[in-house]
Amino acid sequence: MTHPMSKALEYSQDHRPQFVERLGEWLTIPSVSTRTDHRADMERAAAWIADSLRELGLGGVQLHPPESHPIVYAEQLDAGPQRPTVLLYGHYDVQPAEPFDLWDSEPFQPTVRGEDLYARGACDMKGPIFSIVCALESILAGGRLPVNVRFMIEGGEEIGSPHLPEFMTRNRDLLACDFCLNPDTGMVAPDLPSIAIAMRGIAYFELRVYGPRQDLHSGSFGGIVHNPAQVLCDLVAGMHDENGRITLPGFYDKVRELDSEERAELARLPLDEASFLEQTGAPAPWGEAGYSQVERIGIRPTLEVNGLCSGFTGEGAKTVLPAYAMAKISMRLVPDQDSAAVKGQLEAYLDEHAPPTVRWELDEIAHVPATVSERHSPWVEAMSAAQRKVWGRKPVFTRCGGGVPVVIHLQQILGMESVNTGWALPDGNLHAPNERLHLPTFYKGIETLIRFFYEVAR
Amino acid sequence: MTHPMSKALEYSQDHRPQFVERLGEWLTIPSVSTRTDHRADMERAAAWIADSLRELGLGGVQLHPPESHPIVYAEQLDAGPQRPTVLLYGHYDVQPAEPFDLWDSEPFQPTVRGEDLYARGACDMKGPIFSIVCALESILAGGRLPVNVRFMIEGGEEIGSPHLPEFMTRNRDLLACDFCLNPDTGMVAPDLPSIAIAMRGIAYFELRVYGPRQDLHSGSFGGIVHNPAQVLCDLVAGMHDENGRITLPGFYDKVRELDSEERAELARLPLDEASFLEQTGAPAPWGEAGYSQVERIGIRPTLEVNGLCSGFTGEGAKTVLPAYAMAKISMRLVPDQDSAAVKGQLEAYLDEHAPPTVRWELDEIAHVPATVSERHSPWVEAMSAAQRKVWGRKPVFTRCGGGVPVVIHLQQILGMESVNTGWALPDGNLHAPNERLHLPTFYKGIETLIRFFYEVAR
Repeated sequence: MTHPMSKALEYSQDHRPQFVERLGEWLTIPSVSTRTDHRADMERAAAWIADSLRELGLGGVQLHPPESHPIVYAEQLDAGPQRPTVLLYGHYDVQPAEPFDLWDSEPFQPTVRGEDLYARGACDMKGPIFSIVCALESILAGGRLPVNVRFMIEGGEEIGSPHLPEFMTRNRDLLACDFCLNPDTGMVAPDLPSIAIAMRGIAYFELRVYGPRQDLHSGSFGGIVHNPAQVLCDLVAGMHDENGRITLPGFYDKVRELDSEERAELARLPLDEASFLEQTGAPAPWGEAGYSQVERIGIRPTLEVNGLCSGFTGEGAKTVLPAYAMAKISMRLVPDQDSAAVKGQLEAYLDEHAPPTVRWELDEIAHVPATVSERHSPWVEAMSAAQRKVWGRKPVFTRCGGGVPVVIHLQQILGMESVNTGWALPDGNLHAPNERLHLPTFYKGIETLIRFFYEVAR
Repeated sequence: MTHPMSKALEYSQDHRPQFVERLGEWLTIPSVSTRTDHRADMERAAAWIADSLRELGLGGVQLHPPESHPIVYAEQLDAGPQRPTVLLYGHYDVQPAEPFDLWDSEPFQPTVRGEDLYARGACDMKGPIFSIVCALESILAGGRLPVNVRFMIEGGEEIGSPHLPEFMTRNRDLLACDFCLNPDTGMVAPDLPSIAIAMRGIAYFELRVYGPRQDLHSGSFGGIVHNPAQVLCDLVAGMHDENGRITLPGFYDKVRELDSEERAELARLPLDEASFLEQTGAPAPWGEAGYSQVERIGIRPTLEVNGLCSGFTGEGAKTVLPAYAMAKISMRLVPDQDSAAVKGQLEAYLDEHAPPTVRWELDEIAHVPATVSERHSPWVEAMSAAQRKVWGRKPVFTRCGGGVPVVIHLQQILGMESVNTGWALPDGNLHAPNERLHLPTFYKGIETLIRFFYEVAR
């Protein structure tokens, strides 16, 4: 008797054209979450995936609020309580497709060219979430699911997942699972399966520097009143030293240094200076001395100016000595930095360096801790084993520069770990024109998921 | 036989109530130049002063374009070609009166309280320009004018005198004069007549620093892409040293140092730290080491940030690594600095200090040279003598921190020097609520002008 997994893998290989065709149908719906004029499309895209889950035979299928960005829920718990329960996460909303004229084919008329399926949302992330549907269908075609599953497919990821915290808080029982599978973090190369095991946290501040009571004439008072914009620049400039290190007192005290094994692991990633320069268009590389670019993004904290504003910024000239200047400043945090401690370090820096010629105010706007997954959890091991089988090499463990809201909310609200992986490639043009899903990788992804579900059930 | 000047002085003393009453009539017209909804008021205010000049018996009275801010011209050239011809400058437009609730009486219902006449425009500058009308009327009541006069009264001073250059260029013959009398620069104290003999120039730039091709996610790329906002802050911060001196290479090379006599003269001005702090509301004094506050404003060049802009400046948080950052930067120039040379110094600084991780662009937006009047011209000597007679002490020569457009345009377009003086006091609340004209000073101003016209005709 053939093992059910082999039958499922066979089914998935036989049904590739149908999978792509059905995915293409979903991709015709322009479910742009940031636009209110796409509200009907949001409903259609949610209904489409809900119907697909019903057709799979899942139960409890329901669209949860908000109506503008419904959250699709479905479940099948037939594997029984001795088997793990997996929360399957995805989002059906997509980025706007503009500028349309840079697309070689219509963004919402999915088109296969070469090995790729071109459409907005193809790899971010209707393709990856549909790969789960394909894997489950392949298994169910020949038997029962080896694990219990619950789906949570949201419509607001591209706008920052604002509705998830309330949904999670209200539906703890519905979401009771052992872990979450999140196929939204992608791969670093087509031949290199990837699991994201860490995400930097953030502490985000607004710093305001006040000088004179009101804007002054720069002729009448320039030279005797300390210009708050100049003071702000002095303060910001002093926050880094000449080696790109952050000067806030104690900032690096708690930063966890990676051991040589972990650094060697990161060094495996095929990401070099040239590829970063090409991706960003920056004229030259920059960063903290002593660390590779991958390490600078993944394991080192940073301090960024996200915004600056002061005085006159319109066209032409206005001879104003501004009354105040503002900077948005955020730090990306790594384990084991604490955002409250970082706030204290920033305040200590300002206390020491802000001159008596100005007043300053600091507001904390947001803070999220860094997250690290247990690399040796059974879920990560299972995904690692499945990927090793399909790709013939073990996955790399990556560290995301920024946090993914759902991963953080799951951890903070439900105490749930996520296995973060995916099939989107670096050249998949996410959020850009000509977004594309590499179909051979998509097929490998379906096979990986089939193997993963059996693996994790052992 | 009484000297005509004595009769004129007597007339002016006898008619003070009438002068104040008629000035009050003009002050009821809210000629706010910056507001299009005050266009009819602008016309009324221009017509009012034109009628007053006609009643004086002046000829050639005409309202010149633009219609939105008419320039009032009038002349009387009866004194003959052997007598000097004086261009009498003024403006009938006023600043907006908001915030209205901070006024103790209605801004356009002139009210005498104590020794002051309260109204928007009372001292800036319907009062001072009307003092010329009063002086001429006092002289004409008993005889002929000792000098030839031409009036040029504009309606756009509070918006930067944008219409004057074209008017001057088109009307060179009409404006042919020996010098200009401009009573718009005021006094440093009620007992200290003042003549402004220098104005700082300006060189105004926009500096743009470019990094990545487009705004980046600060999580994905923070730490490997040099943040243009941070680079801009570094560059701006480096433009001053710890003594408040400007670091652009060669910036002070041509700066003319005052001799000890001139510094002693400036030290006479009753302007101290406390008064500047009260005026500006700045928490503490600041400025270039080694110079007094009056010197920092009058004789030392400065570099100011007039505006800053980069990335996200709205409410809340956006985790953007900005693609570019902009600063408006201007230098106040003193004799003998050259704005073209200053531009070269700024470029040299940027060449040396801007890192290879960014690109930068610099645009020059405006430049005006510093001006210095000849302190010993017959016109300045005549004003000095008249003020000495009226106040019993010789005037102080002041240096304005900023340029006055009309003075610069007259010098640049017509090669004409101005005698800059006036009767507005430092606590006259110019551009602020409860603007007021100190009436005893106003009366002294009229007498000064009567004496000045006879003095300058000698």
